[in-house]
Amino acid sequence: MNILITNDDGIRADGIIELAKTVATIANVYVIAPETQKSATGHAITIHNPIMVNEEFIQENIKAYSISGTPADCVKVGIEALLKDVKIDLVLSGINNGPNLGEDVIYSGTVSAAIEGFIQKKPSIAFSYDEFNVSKEVYLKAADYAVELVNNMKDKLHLLDDCVLNVNIPNKEVKGYKITKLGTREYENDVIERVNPHGKKYLWIGGRMKETKQEEDSDVKAVNDGYISITPVNIDMTCRKKIDILKNEKLL
Amino acid sequence: MNILITNDDGIRADGIIELAKTVATIANVYVIAPETQKSATGHAITIHNPIMVNEEFIQENIKAYSISGTPADCVKVGIEALLKDVKIDLVLSGINNGPNLGEDVIYSGTVSAAIEGFIQKKPSIAFSYDEFNVSKEVYLKAADYAVELVNNMKDKLHLLDDCVLNVNIPNKEVKGYKITKLGTREYENDVIERVNPHGKKYLWIGGRMKETKQEEDSDVKAVNDGYISITPVNIDMTCRKKIDILKNEKLL
Repeated sequence: MNILITNDDGIRADGIIELAKTVATIANVYVIAPETQKSATGHAITIHNPIMVNEEFIQENIKAYSISGTPADCVKVGIEALLKDVKIDLVLSGINNGPNLGEDVIYSGTVSAAIEGFIQKKPSIAFSYDEFNVSKEVYLKAADYAVELVNNMKDKLHLLDDCVLNVNIPNKEVKGYKITKLGTREYENDVIERVNPHGKKYLWIGGRMKETKQEEDSDVKAVNDGYISITPVNIDMTCRKKIDILKNEKLL
Repeated sequence: MNILITNDDGIRADGIIELAKTVATIANVYVIAPETQKSATGHAITIHNPIMVNEEFIQENIKAYSISGTPADCVKVGIEALLKDVKIDLVLSGINNGPNLGEDVIYSGTVSAAIEGFIQKKPSIAFSYDEFNVSKEVYLKAADYAVELVNNMKDKLHLLDDCVLNVNIPNKEVKGYKITKLGTREYENDVIERVNPHGKKYLWIGGRMKETKQEEDSDVKAVNDGYISITPVNIDMTCRKKIDILKNEKLL
């Protein structure tokens, strides 16, 4: 198998390095990642600027590049340009530094890279770890789960023809895995106002998560309970149940 | 009504200026827009850098700011910081320079700004015009449709409690409007490879649209046929039909 690996934390993040090295034991691995931290970039792509490309070294049997673009750019330019002579069988994104659960998915560069893989008609899986700034050893253990999932999926990649998998690995003893739906995430006191040394106002988006009630089959609940959460995610955002309701209203 | 207006083409784009001036004839208008062009930024938010804020002038009865962030940032910092003492009743995004149809929505800063409005629990509508770089007069006519929609929706904003509206206005005589679902957009020959004056390789994402077959009730078809397309869009990306299928597979 030829596997393209990307992330949103950048080429030097432990999560992608451990994932790439581990997956390289079972497949040909190509890494294309942002040259710097690009988390929370959603599905941004770079169209108003050129994207610079740098060759990188991870280990001998891994072809690696960093680019000046976003996670979605990595997959797009990987499949359409840098690796256009390679038949990529699978796109993996991660392992992300921190979870991507519930509405986080909207903001997540990690998940957006997997969704770009889907748009490029490639089976795609996003991996995130439910804690920030953990050690290489922790990522290595998480990468073993990623390889196990890839091994189990490799004869049924057709299951990913209408969705990507969003996988979150708990930061506690793993009890097993659950197929979940996206839960609810809410943040409060998000935006901090400050004044810079030159007297100019600036804002900084921060915020802490609110406790929210979770349904039994949500990704948030599964990870909190010690299960690896696997959520099928697609890109058809049409709110179908509203179509007939809106048809009965005079809007224009 | 207090209406927050944003866009992804930046504070100086004709589309937002004509929309703001027209909507200001029926409501209190607050404009917060990116200081520069930010299209195709998806749902990116700025968390690793501060967001600078500048006061701007559009006309006397419109309070306006530009910020160094993304379209989603505009709505987030607008509601949570800059306008925290104003009860915003509605968020409008646009009028975008060019269409946002089908899978464009995934990449669209315009639609993502409306989705951020939804995340902030505000009724939200995105407007796009199905041609690039049209005149002020064309945007002014499109803005009249926006005002008509706002007037017709203002007593039924509860309809937007689980979705945003994605509105695309055709660049031809308007025959009416249709409630639609997101159609299909495919691009080909997307990424151009070049070498800069210093010998370094770079890429530029371009591409032209492929003709794709459209279902009768798609947004792409409606706009092509001369109808204003109104699509309800939500953020629950769970692929529900895959959940039971995946539950029957051994994945880990």
